[in-house]
Amino acid sequence: MIDVTIPTALLRHYAQVRKWTETICRPLQKEDYVVQPVEDVSPPKWHLGHTTWFFETLVLKKFLPGYIEFDPMFNFVFNSYYESLGARVIRTDRGNLSRPTVDEIYKYRKYVDSAMEQLLAQPLPEEAETLITLGCNHEQQHQELLWYDIKYILGNNPLFPPYNESPAPETPRSAPMHFIDMEAGVYEIGFAGEGFCYDNELGRHKVYLEPYAIADRPVTNGEFLAFIDAGGYREFSYWHAEGWDWVKRNNIQSPMYWHFDEGRWMNYTLQGLVPVDPAEILSHISFYEAAAFAAWKGLRLPTEFEWEAASGKFPWGQRWEWTESAYLPYPGFERVAGAVGEYNGKFMVNQKVLRGASEFTPTGHSRATYRNFFHPHLRWQLTGIRLAKTLKPSL
Amino acid sequence: MIDVTIPTALLRHYAQVRKWTETICRPLQKEDYVVQPVEDVSPPKWHLGHTTWFFETLVLKKFLPGYIEFDPMFNFVFNSYYESLGARVIRTDRGNLSRPTVDEIYKYRKYVDSAMEQLLAQPLPEEAETLITLGCNHEQQHQELLWYDIKYILGNNPLFPPYNESPAPETPRSAPMHFIDMEAGVYEIGFAGEGFCYDNELGRHKVYLEPYAIADRPVTNGEFLAFIDAGGYREFSYWHAEGWDWVKRNNIQSPMYWHFDEGRWMNYTLQGLVPVDPAEILSHISFYEAAAFAAWKGLRLPTEFEWEAASGKFPWGQRWEWTESAYLPYPGFERVAGAVGEYNGKFMVNQKVLRGASEFTPTGHSRATYRNFFHPHLRWQLTGIRLAKTLKPSL
Amino acid sequence: MIDVTIPTALLRHYAQVRKWTETICRPLQKEDYVVQPVEDVSPPKWHLGHTTWFFETLVLKKFLPGYIEFDPMFNFVFNSYYESLGARVIRTDRGNLSRPTVDEIYKYRKYVDSAMEQLLAQPLPEEAETLITLGCNHEQQHQELLWYDIKYILGNNPLFPPYNESPAPETPRSAPMHFIDMEAGVYEIGFAGEGFCYDNELGRHKVYLEPYAIADRPVTNGEFLAFIDAGGYREFSYWHAEGWDWVKRNNIQSPMYWHFDEGRWMNYTLQGLVPVDPAEILSHISFYEAAAFAAWKGLRLPTEFEWEAASGKFPWGQRWEWTESAYLPYPGFERVAGAVGEYNGKFMVNQKVLRGASEFTPTGHSRATYRNFFHPHLRWQLTGIRLAKTLKPSL
Amino acid sequence: MIDVTIPTALLRHYAQVRKWTETICRPLQKEDYVVQPVEDVSPPKWHLGHTTWFFETLVLKKFLPGYIEFDPMFNFVFNSYYESLGARVIRTDRGNLSRPTVDEIYKYRKYVDSAMEQLLAQPLPEEAETLITLGCNHEQQHQELLWYDIKYILGNNPLFPPYNESPAPETPRSAPMHFIDMEAGVYEIGFAGEGFCYDNELGRHKVYLEPYAIADRPVTNGEFLAFIDAGGYREFSYWHAEGWDWVKRNNIQSPMYWHFDEGRWMNYTLQGLVPVDPAEILSHISFYEAAAFAAWKGLRLPTEFEWEAASGKFPWGQRWEWTESAYLPYPGFERVAGAVGEYNGKFMVNQKVLRGASEFTPTGHSRATYRNFFHPHLRWQLTGIRLAKTLKPSL
Ligand SMILES: [Fe+3]
Ligand SMILES: [Fe+3]
Ligand SMILES: [Fe+3]
Ligand SMILES: [Fe+3]
Repeated sequence: MIDVTIPTALLRHYAQVRKWTETICRPLQKEDYVVQPVEDVSPPKWHLGHTTWFFETLVLKKFLPGYIEFDPMFNFVFNSYYESLGARVIRTDRGNLSRPTVDEIYKYRKYVDSAMEQLLAQPLPEEAETLITLGCNHEQQHQELLWYDIKYILGNNPLFPPYNESPAPETPRSAPMHFIDMEAGVYEIGFAGEGFCYDNELGRHKVYLEPYAIADRPVTNGEFLAFIDAGGYREFSYWHAEGWDWVKRNNIQSPMYWHFDEGRWMNYTLQGLVPVDPAEILSHISFYEAAAFAAWKGLRLPTEFEWEAASGKFPWGQRWEWTESAYLPYPGFERVAGAVGEYNGKFMVNQKVLRGASEFTPTGHSRATYRNFFHPHLRWQLTGIRLAKTLKPSL
Repeated sequence: MIDVTIPTALLRHYAQVRKWTETICRPLQKEDYVVQPVEDVSPPKWHLGHTTWFFETLVLKKFLPGYIEFDPMFNFVFNSYYESLGARVIRTDRGNLSRPTVDEIYKYRKYVDSAMEQLLAQPLPEEAETLITLGCNHEQQHQELLWYDIKYILGNNPLFPPYNESPAPETPRSAPMHFIDMEAGVYEIGFAGEGFCYDNELGRHKVYLEPYAIADRPVTNGEFLAFIDAGGYREFSYWHAEGWDWVKRNNIQSPMYWHFDEGRWMNYTLQGLVPVDPAEILSHISFYEAAAFAAWKGLRLPTEFEWEAASGKFPWGQRWEWTESAYLPYPGFERVAGAVGEYNGKFMVNQKVLRGASEFTPTGHSRATYRNFFHPHLRWQLTGIRLAKTLKPSL
Repeated sequence: MIDVTIPTALLRHYAQVRKWTETICRPLQKEDYVVQPVEDVSPPKWHLGHTTWFFETLVLKKFLPGYIEFDPMFNFVFNSYYESLGARVIRTDRGNLSRPTVDEIYKYRKYVDSAMEQLLAQPLPEEAETLITLGCNHEQQHQELLWYDIKYILGNNPLFPPYNESPAPETPRSAPMHFIDMEAGVYEIGFAGEGFCYDNELGRHKVYLEPYAIADRPVTNGEFLAFIDAGGYREFSYWHAEGWDWVKRNNIQSPMYWHFDEGRWMNYTLQGLVPVDPAEILSHISFYEAAAFAAWKGLRLPTEFEWEAASGKFPWGQRWEWTESAYLPYPGFERVAGAVGEYNGKFMVNQKVLRGASEFTPTGHSRATYRNFFHPHLRWQLTGIRLAKTLKPSL
Repeated sequence: MIDVTIPTALLRHYAQVRKWTETICRPLQKEDYVVQPVEDVSPPKWHLGHTTWFFETLVLKKFLPGYIEFDPMFNFVFNSYYESLGARVIRTDRGNLSRPTVDEIYKYRKYVDSAMEQLLAQPLPEEAETLITLGCNHEQQHQELLWYDIKYILGNNPLFPPYNESPAPETPRSAPMHFIDMEAGVYEIGFAGEGFCYDNELGRHKVYLEPYAIADRPVTNGEFLAFIDAGGYREFSYWHAEGWDWVKRNNIQSPMYWHFDEGRWMNYTLQGLVPVDPAEILSHISFYEAAAFAAWKGLRLPTEFEWEAASGKFPWGQRWEWTESAYLPYPGFERVAGAVGEYNGKFMVNQKVLRGASEFTPTGHSRATYRNFFHPHLRWQLTGIRLAKTLKPSL
């Protein structure tokens, strides 16, 4: 027997999530929706279509009887990396596609939304609810990427157009950094309790942590400027081997979006190009830069376990904080079969875990157990640094 | 003393040329203006801006007193390969720029056009007239590229959108191919007479040609299909060394825009995807394919001199016809100094001359002495094949 | 006060290590010493020189009064990745250097060895002993690489020359695979006790392991053949994302050195090309292949902690066994300053830990705490697979 | 009936050519025979084997009854770009092959030479004589390449070993440069008369030349130093578009083998590193550099026709002189079928003709009609510059 309920709350949630995606895009010009300046950045119109395609393909086709696809070609255009659902558009090619147009994609969204409303007006099997919840979380993930990508598209245009004209939020003055001591012992790691989480947070398990200390706030622009001024980008001993290669090959001299212009550091923000604010929390740095900064300080980054174990003792959520941990499955992790499993379960060998959340993370989409992960050289995300150190180990 | 006249005819010509550029773009969606799927294809909005920038920078700033630039950043965005005019946007980056928007660029065109009308209402020094004439020819060249680029953008989209819905022009049935015999002797080559020509047509000079014969019409799709069916793409002995590498590296099996689908060859045209018409003149082939086809026939391509010497004896103008000639300066060629010289005078080592014109060539922009040139692997232009053979040489 | 002793045992050890390097090279032709077929393989003559350079630069110049360098240019030629010791020959360039010749390098070895004997005949400060011990271990590491590189050079030559003509060691018949159950709990990890170890084994610390089981022997060729026959190389769901890219980009269809020839799998060994022996332990597979094989079995690879905790319960030492663990520093790890620190302490982001040892590992150079590490796509080393599985976790 | 003679003179010629190849190699160490530092340089041992393979495959197998191949695998190892003779070793891989050894290759040479002597002791069909003559010319071409490659291998080694210790030949003092005026008119171009020539010299034909002048001697090091000192490598207007890209991408600042060291220009020669001699004829420059130098002088390079027409009026033969001409077939050129045709007849699109000969050209291997050709960026050959200019043209 299948468990069915009328999911009014889910409908409300669905509608809110879907609307927020479009709100993010409101200030864009049509041209901004189309371009893909580098491989990792997707055109905003692709995000609009791809998140919609998720509901059409994984929910409507299966659970809404008589549902007719908006356009069968869209499966080809808006599929992502899900190999089990068929041929996909090569990722680097997204920015080459002028069609479907932005207007057509908004029509597609409307069409799917109204079918979803129809579906959500009836009692639903639990599997459908689960998939819709997953679809909302999927769209929230893409909302954060949408922010990154919009910022990249505008911030790498020689005209430096602002995203909007409203004043930037005021930066809270940073207090001195303190370290929180954590005792050695066995800690429990991973998601527990009710509510949604991703597969990779499951497999709650124990870890033993040696004694350590962790900073009560992230590093600021001003603190990172001191690293630059001390020649941090020119001294190989602070860097991982690949990090040093990356610095030299790309001639890296500052965080992304910083430009040294007429004697001072400028920073591209959503409000346009402004002077770097030393009190603001640092952002847009790679794992390599985070680790090199820590090495210069004689400190290190926390592991993801250290971060989670201490996360109740400091405020977090403004930046995704690089950890020293490689992204590996938790003990007992088992991949769900099929497309959903593929969505959740694809482990990459060369990725680092980031913990926390950012100013771009949608409300209600952050958890202390959330495991974000990126390649170590990427910096178009809202990344930051939290420092840690080992206390006298027990052996 | 400077020669001045009121250039009414030039104003009319200017207005026609400028209007035609916009007419070509009329069926486009805004999104189509933005993308750059491969390096050689420029976004249509770039062509609109770049041709306008030419008049602003080389004419208005110099000859219209009190002229104020529309936007000083546009010099940076719309400059092409003219190194002497300052830093340029890296060519591969054009497709990354969502701003300036299409609307802003049309405003830019209007702004410059109205300044040009003002300028052309007065007596003008001869140098200005020369530059305006050059600017019109420059824009006509870009009109042809605009066609190529629009076709590429639409024809490489998985939705294969047609450029317009109007029926394709009817294909004239091809008569059997005949060869025209040409006698040995000294011929004169290069531009003579009044009117506009490019620098590279000047340096009229004599060449001695051994006896040869040249086809009275270009090769058709049907004739090229026979080459495909005979395994022409798989037999290396027909190909230049680089051509064979190119075939293998890119897995080339047909002209560009041809797709073998459900047992038959389809062809993307401005009217969408249609079956290949065997009677139609072949197009979108590289120099390598042209030369391999000729080798398979036991024939060869003409040199540019053979083509020009015989050009009064056959109809031409539907395709740019690859010649065997490398693009080299004529004897006595001298480069004009400055930006205009750079525009005219940049010789590339590895380019082949094409002669003729195409269906996309604007009216009044073709001459028997016109020397077009492209890298031998390119095929997004409207290229074709005219066959030739050597008759018993004189020595 | 400096601690000094006459290091007779160390001299004997030094002499043995140095001699073994030359013994490995004895069957080579001079030409075999010179080539570098791929970036990761170094020319044997480079290993001969580089290991010698270590003693000259880090020991003799510092501790043997009046020592005169053999050739100052050799510092430039035989330096490895130690950036703090000055400019280095780009690694990919090693195979381009015909000089110094093999004879000159053997002279260099003799010259340094006789200086070392002189040094080792006297009482030595402890720091010198430590460096000499490190130098011997360094040379032993290069001995193992020498085997890999020799095998690669001969095994990628179309003539498939055998390294020697002596019969291959007999393969022990593999018993059925059993799994050893391990209980949950806190385990101690890292080097303890006397004797030499590398920096990266220090920082002995506690880890908590959930209950797991680990195989009592590595996977055989026969077991891996079943994976091939089941289409394992063609089913993306078994693979990490980068692994699948690697398979497709390189068209991988079998372990390295396997060739499918006239209906059967052949294997290049030091005795030449022979049929694959199903009973032999599998070798020359990448981390990606190891992980995909495990996924196909519904199992996984062990972590390096699981491996070390259980290492007393099974025989090991025939293959370097890939673990699931990324190569990260242990808690409390601190890099020694200077060249030695650089030698020990360079962490790479994208490397996987391998545990165990191989048939090529010199006697006395293996420990249960030894942490070997390589990029996940490499397979010219003597790698193998040990399977593991999670038992019911405790939470 | 087949024309047969006893080819005593041919045997003598064969023996001399074969011996000279080995004489060139005499000062080499075994290691020098093996390496391939860049794609265009072949290992000397490959030249030794490949030239031998030519006689074995194209002559002995066909004309010496009962001839047994030395080793059937050698066909695979020593084949060059001749696709019609079967699979070939990828060219970049030559430097990876340590086997066959140098000794084995000298045995191979001896084996083939003694079979050739046996063959040449009897009356031979004309086709065999033709092929043997071609094989000797082929080996002479490779002798010149052997010099280039040896110089490259030694000259790019950080030890800069001299090829031999004998003193460099004395440089004749250069007289002032004069220009020889040539009249307009029809000239005959291409090989005429008895004796050997390559296919590409045939098709003797008429060309019309406008009046021009050509220098009576090549450019010297001192004259080129003036170009460097005048900033010639930093001013893009002198350069072809690809040439300028090449300069910037490779950071070119001088001819190959020149090193600016402690305030003066040094030059690697076969006698080792010596100061640049301003009176010596310039060498090791690319077509791009030759053309840029000429542009800086307000002059140009001659065409290959201008060079040949005037070649009786000036001494030549010390450098291969770049011409402005692309390498195209002469009118009426027809490729011979089969492997020999492939050897002669492969036209590359992007190559420039060089005329003359060099100090490395074997005696008896130069002709005024000889057409050498290389890609425009290459400079490991013995290239030079002869200047030309257009006189007032006739039209
Ligand atoms: Fe997605
Ligand atoms: Fe232009
Ligand atoms: Fe080493
Ligand atoms: Fe050859």
